[in-house]
Amino acid sequence: MKFQKRVLVRNCPNEIGKEVMLAGWVQTVRAHGKIAFFDLRDRSGLLQIGAFTPELAKKVASLHSQDVVGVSGIVKKRGEKYINRDVAFGDLELEVTDIVVLHAASEMPFDMGGKELHVELPTLLDYRSLTLKHQKVANIFIVQAALADEFRKHAQELDCTEIFVPTIAAGATEGGAEVFEIDYYGHKAFLTQSPQLYKQMMVGVLERVYTIAKAYRAEPSVTTRHISEATQMDIEIAFIERFDELLDALEFVGTGMIRNVAKRYPQILKQFGVEAPLVSNRVPRLTLREAQAIVTKRTGRDLSREPDLNPEDEKEICQWAKEEKGSDFVTITHFPTKKRAFYTMPDPKDPEYSLSYDLLFRGLEILSGSQRIHEHEKLVSAMKAKGVDPDNFSLYLMAFQYGMPPEGGFSFGLERLTMKLLELQNVREASLFPRDMERVDVRLAHHDKEDARKTKQQKS
Amino acid sequence: MKFQKRVLVRNCPNEIGKEVMLAGWVQTVRAHGKIAFFDLRDRSGLLQIGAFTPELAKKVASLHSQDVVGVSGIVKKRGEKYINRDVAFGDLELEVTDIVVLHAASEMPFDMGGKELHVELPTLLDYRSLTLKHQKVANIFIVQAALADEFRKHAQELDCTEIFVPTIAAGATEGGAEVFEIDYYGHKAFLTQSPQLYKQMMVGVLERVYTIAKAYRAEPSVTTRHISEATQMDIEIAFIERFDELLDALEFVGTGMIRNVAKRYPQILKQFGVEAPLVSNRVPRLTLREAQAIVTKRTGRDLSREPDLNPEDEKEICQWAKEEKGSDFVTITHFPTKKRAFYTMPDPKDPEYSLSYDLLFRGLEILSGSQRIHEHEKLVSAMKAKGVDPDNFSLYLMAFQYGMPPEGGFSFGLERLTMKLLELQNVREASLFPRDMERVDVRLAHHDKEDARKTKQQKS
Repeated sequence: MKFQKRVLVRNCPNEIGKEVMLAGWVQTVRAHGKIAFFDLRDRSGLLQIGAFTPELAKKVASLHSQDVVGVSGIVKKRGEKYINRDVAFGDLELEVTDIVVLHAASEMPFDMGGKELHVELPTLLDYRSLTLKHQKVANIFIVQAALADEFRKHAQELDCTEIFVPTIAAGATEGGAEVFEIDYYGHKAFLTQSPQLYKQMMVGVLERVYTIAKAYRAEPSVTTRHISEATQMDIEIAFIERFDELLDALEFVGTGMIRNVAKRYPQILKQFGVEAPLVSNRVPRLTLREAQAIVTKRTGRDLSREPDLNPEDEKEICQWAKEEKGSDFVTITHFPTKKRAFYTMPDPKDPEYSLSYDLLFRGLEILSGSQRIHEHEKLVSAMKAKGVDPDNFSLYLMAFQYGMPPEGGFSFGLERLTMKLLELQNVREASLFPRDMERVDVRLAHHDKEDARKTKQQKS
Repeated sequence: MKFQKRVLVRNCPNEIGKEVMLAGWVQTVRAHGKIAFFDLRDRSGLLQIGAFTPELAKKVASLHSQDVVGVSGIVKKRGEKYINRDVAFGDLELEVTDIVVLHAASEMPFDMGGKELHVELPTLLDYRSLTLKHQKVANIFIVQAALADEFRKHAQELDCTEIFVPTIAAGATEGGAEVFEIDYYGHKAFLTQSPQLYKQMMVGVLERVYTIAKAYRAEPSVTTRHISEATQMDIEIAFIERFDELLDALEFVGTGMIRNVAKRYPQILKQFGVEAPLVSNRVPRLTLREAQAIVTKRTGRDLSREPDLNPEDEKEICQWAKEEKGSDFVTITHFPTKKRAFYTMPDPKDPEYSLSYDLLFRGLEILSGSQRIHEHEKLVSAMKAKGVDPDNFSLYLMAFQYGMPPEGGFSFGLERLTMKLLELQNVREASLFPRDMERVDVRLAHHDKEDARKTKQQKS
């Protein structure tokens, strides 16, 4: 059996009546005595394989979930009453003529068959190398790859150049305590909380830039929305004349990216029970104050003293956008200056509020950003006011001494966006190998216990 | 003056005779009394701006390098004898009618004009926010972005799915001491030396994957070839039947990527004095032993006891490939098993040598990889033989228990590739913000001294 002529599941519709070779992983096996079936998974899809002689049926019955196999057989159209219209390739079947096991899998610790993988989150992660093979779990990351791809396409359409920025820094980007410290050749250094400062420096060079970078946050608690190492998709644009240009850009990227991914993978969205996004011609834009007034009007809750929208408010204002404007997106602007990072430009008309924005999608903030302070002295003052030491950012500040045009930008959290688009319960489901205070691939407590056990053994 | 109708330099050829607005950075100013000129740089190129009234000439004469300006004027074709054929848009000029300074730059610490930026490496990096604005320096990163873009396009053509992998790990990926340690919520963790183990796990799920990820190496010395934080472009492919399929894949990506970037930016290659790459129909393939025999024949050097090619040998074998095969690329295979990482598959025919490979380009290794051991027990033995503790890699090893097809892959260092393509002297020139044992944006010794000074001041 030669793989050279291996056919992918997705190409089987062109091979009806022909003998082909497939390779992939065994999913569910269904043995019925003299005949037997299994689903074969390859990178392009699932196909039902049928064995209709006692000898082949026996061979199929002996297969285990996740065995790696090569199979030969004839692609057949299923009879009308055997068509499964719920799945791709549900109208086809391979009538197998030969099977070779290339790599045998160990006994499964839980059932890998079925449309859903019924395991709790800790098990999902403890067995990550295995659970990712369940097609519904794998599909999360097919969508994630598409989101990143669409992000880049839209950034390139905005004429942004890709940049590669460091993750090791001399100071904490955003201030605050939630930073990871590194032993850097005997010096103290930190993992960056975002690529923010580097993309700002780079618009002084390339005008318009984008990057997909890591963002590290030493979150001291376990929540469903936070991971310690996240993937951030960032854009920064210079030579803006009006604040609205930034809103145009973020809405172009945010809505375009999500709409295109939904178009590319309608079946995955269906599998997760998610509707295609409603994108109106114009994303509704509200200041925070306007949004709060609408929420107050709809719910009676008094928000006049609130400096931000809480999760309930975000849901409510999105409900309003959907009902009143036919949009799953809404842009909120002008958050209080004191609630935003030091580089955020205060609104010249009312400096208590800032030229900042969030993009909400179906009740969740998926993007955040602002126009930036681009005057050197104002930036230094803003840093000091937030307790950030300018001495740790001399290279950053230098960029504002040698010709910085008016600029701004925004960023998406890739895992958070994936979680929201597929309506997952926990951001960890949207990260291949999530890091949090309890886990680095393995659970940390367990890991330490093992270490202790070994040290003890060595000593004794 | 409104930016809404801003025209980019690259679009000026379509605007001859019309009044347009441009915006960008002032490069060299040339004042000649009643007339004056300057070069304006925007994200798309450089254009000469001419002022032909005393008033405007005076205004131009007062501009400083790197001032951010908006200019209005009429696009003109230059007279035959004024055409500069060495540069893009050298046949055009903007006859200025109005200038507005949007952001004034500080006095330059060195000359930013001219074709070359004449500063030493430490200055190049100490003033990175400024030196990157020199067009020749910026062009390095235009090429770098194109390399990453072409890498992704080729990876997608191989039907690879993009993955996002963590950089914080419980153990050292490749063993060895050159790892950075992190304080991870009071636990010890490390920065990954490569995305290797994660991409291997993921071919057990998605078959074919690619990633652009960080690779951290705590190199204890300063060399021209190493930085502490590098960008790695990785591909991993499963269901391979023959070792040669991996060579086909790596040569497809390696040569295609470089050829396309050279086609996209011939003027940048010319600026760096670099010829377009020679890509023959077939990249010459040699085992290490064959390559050594050729070097011996050409130079008389006895390499029969050498376990690898040294830099001189790499240059020699590339010279051979160019002269004899018309190729700037040569693939070397079958390096000694003991010189390669634990996951490298030994050649079944001669286990002292491995199913490994390097791709050399013009005298330098730009890619490395191998077929991998995909049998769980063999992998555990190989780990132990290299002194790597399997307990730190339980999730990785799990992937080989639940159905792993034959697989292999390769990776490029993005900065190293950029350096080689443009024939730069030092890899730091090919990193926007290079990290090494002496520098994290600012020089570490200086930084510490500043810290000490402050602490002292606080105490006194």
